[in-house]
Amino acid sequence: MTNMKNKFINLSPPRFLILVFLTLIILGSLLLMLPISTTESISFIDALFTATSAMTVTGLIVVDTGTAYSLFGQIVIMCLIQLGGLGIMTFAVLIYMALGRKIGIKERLLIKQALNQTSLGGIIRLVKKLLVFSLTVEFIAVVFLCTKWCPEMGFTDGLYASIFHSVSAFNNAGFSIWSDSLSGYVIDPVINIVITLLFIIGGVGFTVVFDLWKNKEFHQLSLHSKIMIVGTIAVNIFSFLIIFILEYNNPGTIGDFSTAGKLQAAYFQAVTPRTAGFNTVDIGQMEDASLFFMLILMFIGGGSASTAGGIKLTTALAIVLATIAFFKDRNHAVVYRRRLDYQLIIRALALTVGSVFVVSIAVFILDLSQNAPFLTVLFETISAFGTVGLSMGLTGSLTIIGKIVIIFTMLAGKLGPLTFAFAFAKQTPDIIKYPSEDILTG
Amino acid sequence: MTNMKNKFINLSPPRFLILVFLTLIILGSLLLMLPISTTESISFIDALFTATSAMTVTGLIVVDTGTAYSLFGQIVIMCLIQLGGLGIMTFAVLIYMALGRKIGIKERLLIKQALNQTSLGGIIRLVKKLLVFSLTVEFIAVVFLCTKWCPEMGFTDGLYASIFHSVSAFNNAGFSIWSDSLSGYVIDPVINIVITLLFIIGGVGFTVVFDLWKNKEFHQLSLHSKIMIVGTIAVNIFSFLIIFILEYNNPGTIGDFSTAGKLQAAYFQAVTPRTAGFNTVDIGQMEDASLFFMLILMFIGGGSASTAGGIKLTTALAIVLATIAFFKDRNHAVVYRRRLDYQLIIRALALTVGSVFVVSIAVFILDLSQNAPFLTVLFETISAFGTVGLSMGLTGSLTIIGKIVIIFTMLAGKLGPLTFAFAFAKQTPDIIKYPSEDILTG
Ligand SMILES: [K+]
Ligand SMILES: [K+]
Repeated sequence: MTNMKNKFINLSPPRFLILVFLTLIILGSLLLMLPISTTESISFIDALFTATSAMTVTGLIVVDTGTAYSLFGQIVIMCLIQLGGLGIMTFAVLIYMALGRKIGIKERLLIKQALNQTSLGGIIRLVKKLLVFSLTVEFIAVVFLCTKWCPEMGFTDGLYASIFHSVSAFNNAGFSIWSDSLSGYVIDPVINIVITLLFIIGGVGFTVVFDLWKNKEFHQLSLHSKIMIVGTIAVNIFSFLIIFILEYNNPGTIGDFSTAGKLQAAYFQAVTPRTAGFNTVDIGQMEDASLFFMLILMFIGGGSASTAGGIKLTTALAIVLATIAFFKDRNHAVVYRRRLDYQLIIRALALTVGSVFVVSIAVFILDLSQNAPFLTVLFETISAFGTVGLSMGLTGSLTIIGKIVIIFTMLAGKLGPLTFAFAFAKQTPDIIKYPSEDILTG
Repeated sequence: MTNMKNKFINLSPPRFLILVFLTLIILGSLLLMLPISTTESISFIDALFTATSAMTVTGLIVVDTGTAYSLFGQIVIMCLIQLGGLGIMTFAVLIYMALGRKIGIKERLLIKQALNQTSLGGIIRLVKKLLVFSLTVEFIAVVFLCTKWCPEMGFTDGLYASIFHSVSAFNNAGFSIWSDSLSGYVIDPVINIVITLLFIIGGVGFTVVFDLWKNKEFHQLSLHSKIMIVGTIAVNIFSFLIIFILEYNNPGTIGDFSTAGKLQAAYFQAVTPRTAGFNTVDIGQMEDASLFFMLILMFIGGGSASTAGGIKLTTALAIVLATIAFFKDRNHAVVYRRRLDYQLIIRALALTVGSVFVVSIAVFILDLSQNAPFLTVLFETISAFGTVGLSMGLTGSLTIIGKIVIIFTMLAGKLGPLTFAFAFAKQTPDIIKYPSEDILTG
């Protein structure tokens, strides 16, 4: 017994995280299986799929959240979203503390890595800040959403819709209590602004928000914050232009709207792939070129230490900057007068290659087991891996094998990069030094 | 005039290469436009497409080689294949020599890089060896092919078919004088063995063949040769197993053959994507999972300094090894007791990211301009970029814009990696040393 307890306490943080994560998913699934959770009984695999999708803040759904689940079931989902989105990492810290162990230097370091914090500082203070910040932002959003939804559907229903969508949006979960996601509000400015602000703030990463709070001047910010802020704005503007132009005349999406409507709908679809997952138009109706572009956005995802998924914007930028530097005959990638070390580039490369590998295996199995066009399969897989939640419509018709593959893909997409963050915490030196030799490439 | 001549001579090797390459393509196009070349007149864009496809040894065709072109036209195509396949690089050396300039140390170095030769040695001797070797292999193959085709179609026709397919296969061009490529010989062991041996030898790279010739023992070989030999065998066996299993019951491809037939057909389709381009079954009828797997093989391609295309097997392996090393907490990728330097990994990364970029742009434009499923478009684009020549059937129905995009993609696929080889020849040091700063990834 003592042995078991020791074993439990001495689990490495990534294993501990995975254990907590999986435990909460199983618990969530069991809760969703209760008769009180659903309007009619659902299979275990569907409950497991929903719990995984909520806990990994993905938002892919095999049964309709609004009709298949009761209010109780929906609240279970919302709780899973909040737990998953705020980062099981944070909770791992709290549980470590609850177990009576004062946080030591070594644990601090590990958790610092887990939270992807680079500047030193009290972890406990950070966790508190993080909770206060999240709940504050969600509360403010609820107030704004209520101004729209309470008059429309009565106070109780309006308040509930506001709370659910605020939590879902801030945590980049993409769950909605409505079958057509937010399509009913495609040209509603309040909903468009509040929801997108929520998932952009949630998805940029806490460290960036805190950095901005402390340092008002751009040049005082950390390199990470600078890249994230400029990168997010640039990518969002570029994406908006692409979607707006490509879908301008598509009657299946934004073609029939007024210019103001087109602008809003294009903006929403441009910012949602990284990795909010709400949609205001039918994704399956979009142009192939738009969908291909969105594939790339979904794979990239949001910011580190955020509620977003994907390989992260900084990872993608590190790789692109290294490539540009190489073609410009520079020995190092340089950005904002700072050099990006080889080690950083290799880390970004490894994460990307690992991600491509997981996505490829999943696509391969789905191609074999599902009867769907390649783009639909690829879109679904990258959406699951990036914990985005957008779908061209495959989720509803997945076979059992398909559901299992997507469940694993969501888990790998959420836990992979987090546990990956630990990998470079303990840099062991090579024991044997081999001489280097060049090989031909290209 | 003297100025112009100087300018011409002083062109950097990559620019000189591109100039020669484009000149030969234009010349080839004009020759193919002659009435003597075709059975009925073809448009300039189709002639340009054919010449580019031949010169880049891709093998994608907009008009049927066997019926649209006369014997003269086919011989023009064969000459373009031989010129392109042996590498315009070699010819650039010869032209430098013909211009009366003795090859100096600096040029030697540049050409050494161009040919991707890492071990020092006389370039001129190498070029001669390369020509003798290529012609010898092609000649031996012609003899073998004749034993099959001369009895079948008469001496002249049989000899011609043997020469055309020998040149096309050794140069990894994938052109055939028959509309269904080599489908007529899907279960013919002689054709299967001779043709695949030709393109595997042509595609592994001259340096590897010469290394093998000089050093009989495996441990004496260069790291590059070791990786290429073991890698080629491993990838081919793995690919064979995948294709064999996936297509086993597919009546559209190998499902209706006997086991011996299935084995041969699966083997051929497994080795052709890197980057021979011949096919013995209908590619469009293959399973999505097989096609997805072939996409990856086509993107990887063959060996450096070979007649093959793609990012090259060593590039892909360098990236994979770096990723594995990272996940194993090693500071460096190690293979056969040799360390792969960061610079090498970054070079491989840059080439891969550049390739993904080119393919993405092409897919994006084709998605917008062609009315075809995403997988068909993606397959066609990667086939063009890897200069493979396999098609799910899109090539024949490309619009003018589509043809132009594929022409540029083939050029980028062939000239990109070659000119890229020069990029790391002149490593200029960074002028300003910036301090490094970490950013968060993953
Ligand atoms: K999501
Ligand atoms: K080819």
